[in-house]
Amino acid sequence: MRFITTLKSRWAASGSLLCVGIDPEPGRYPAGLADDPDRVFAFGKAIVDATAEYACAFKPQIAHFAAQGAEDALERLIAHIHATHPGIPVILDAKRGDIGSTAQHYASEAFDRYRADAVTVNPYLGSDSLAPYLERADRGLVVLCRTSNPGAAELQDLPVCGADGTSRPLYQRVAEKAARDWNANGNLALVVGATWPGQLGEVRAIVGPSMPLLVPGIGAQGGDLDAVLRQGLNVEGTGLIISSSRAILYASSGADFAVAAACVARETRDAINRLR
Amino acid sequence: MRFITTLKSRWAASGSLLCVGIDPEPGRYPAGLADDPDRVFAFGKAIVDATAEYACAFKPQIAHFAAQGAEDALERLIAHIHATHPGIPVILDAKRGDIGSTAQHYASEAFDRYRADAVTVNPYLGSDSLAPYLERADRGLVVLCRTSNPGAAELQDLPVCGADGTSRPLYQRVAEKAARDWNANGNLALVVGATWPGQLGEVRAIVGPSMPLLVPGIGAQGGDLDAVLRQGLNVEGTGLIISSSRAILYASSGADFAVAAACVARETRDAINRLR
Repeated sequence: MRFITTLKSRWAASGSLLCVGIDPEPGRYPAGLADDPDRVFAFGKAIVDATAEYACAFKPQIAHFAAQGAEDALERLIAHIHATHPGIPVILDAKRGDIGSTAQHYASEAFDRYRADAVTVNPYLGSDSLAPYLERADRGLVVLCRTSNPGAAELQDLPVCGADGTSRPLYQRVAEKAARDWNANGNLALVVGATWPGQLGEVRAIVGPSMPLLVPGIGAQGGDLDAVLRQGLNVEGTGLIISSSRAILYASSGADFAVAAACVARETRDAINRLR
Repeated sequence: MRFITTLKSRWAASGSLLCVGIDPEPGRYPAGLADDPDRVFAFGKAIVDATAEYACAFKPQIAHFAAQGAEDALERLIAHIHATHPGIPVILDAKRGDIGSTAQHYASEAFDRYRADAVTVNPYLGSDSLAPYLERADRGLVVLCRTSNPGAAELQDLPVCGADGTSRPLYQRVAEKAARDWNANGNLALVVGATWPGQLGEVRAIVGPSMPLLVPGIGAQGGDLDAVLRQGLNVEGTGLIISSSRAILYASSGADFAVAAACVARETRDAINRLR
């Protein structure tokens, strides 16, 4: 099944726009798991099982596994999601970007080894660096457009001169290319941070209603949820994958961490839905 | 020892500007290794030992290992380089790019887990995404500037408007930021492809003589070596890390692959030196 189709079905079935990010921090395992030799998988599995009901997608972040040498735990966690929570798409947050055969290997890493439904990718190297992912029509590609961090403005907001003497920020050129040139297979989405809702609105206007936007930054980074929804929702009241990681994962450091994560996930889903 | 210091010492000691890229392709193992269960490591080790004499650096490309689930082979290969060929810096070609704690984990992956001396990184997310690497003053950061692929022009050559009404391509703005804003610890280098020697010259003029430039694209991609050297060498006749992977790795598919790799590495080093 195609990534975008799965995502739309899941938006409808779950009534949720919340994406649960899975970023296991080595120093922050809850009581009872810190000494578990399989704690990376056990923590991720507990979070997934507790929050699945409230999630339109899961987004494991690969560096948090790789820095711990826990690739095996990531493979098993994604397999667990597919087996236990079918229909919830998995977006591997890897922000890859390379060319030729190397890009093919990164696509294979994400889609064949880890069995992710979609992967995040950096656009700086141009369309041939995106092709190996775009050609996998059954999977999705989530391209960085305007990120949520303070330094994002340094390159992404640079004014690019147009032929008519006007200028547009670089991130808007990325959005234009994504919508017009790169999306032949209809499997592309964009990352636009919640910390800049006005820019989210600009991107939505450029790409139209159907392209999903992955929006990090509403939790610990402090993005304005109401503004995000006003700027980013499409006419169907969907189109957004609103990601939260730390606020859910570390809602409690005690043995009740999974219940606490479920509570925060439910509250976040409900807070989004009250504003939709 | 600092990455840049190690690199300069190695340029002097080896008389070579050649960087040997290690990109193990699953379908291209030579006769005698195809059935070896430890072929990823065995192939890399044989290439490293055969070509070390002719190399100023080694550059393993991580996706080629990750797509095969061979992280352990990559760890052992880099440990082997440090133990057997001390003084040759290892540049992990990973092209990472992320923010906050995630960037910290990618830096930890490259520098602590894999013990690389330097890592390639994508600049699209801005300076806070580079900080976790730049702060590791004993290691190096190699930032993508103008890459060697055909699609590079799509974003990297976009004209960025200046305050005075002129414009400069985006990659030149990246080079300016690298030289002026990002390099407080003196541990930064840039990637500029051999396929666009004029642009290599522009970058050299912007960053000055001391910043190393990693130059892929002279082998299979067909970059003009003479033009690369005219445009990229500094006044000391160094400053370049000229990378070749496939032409060396796959010089022979027979049992003589290591000898053939050594011959091509020596010839490439000599071809560079005749033009220096």
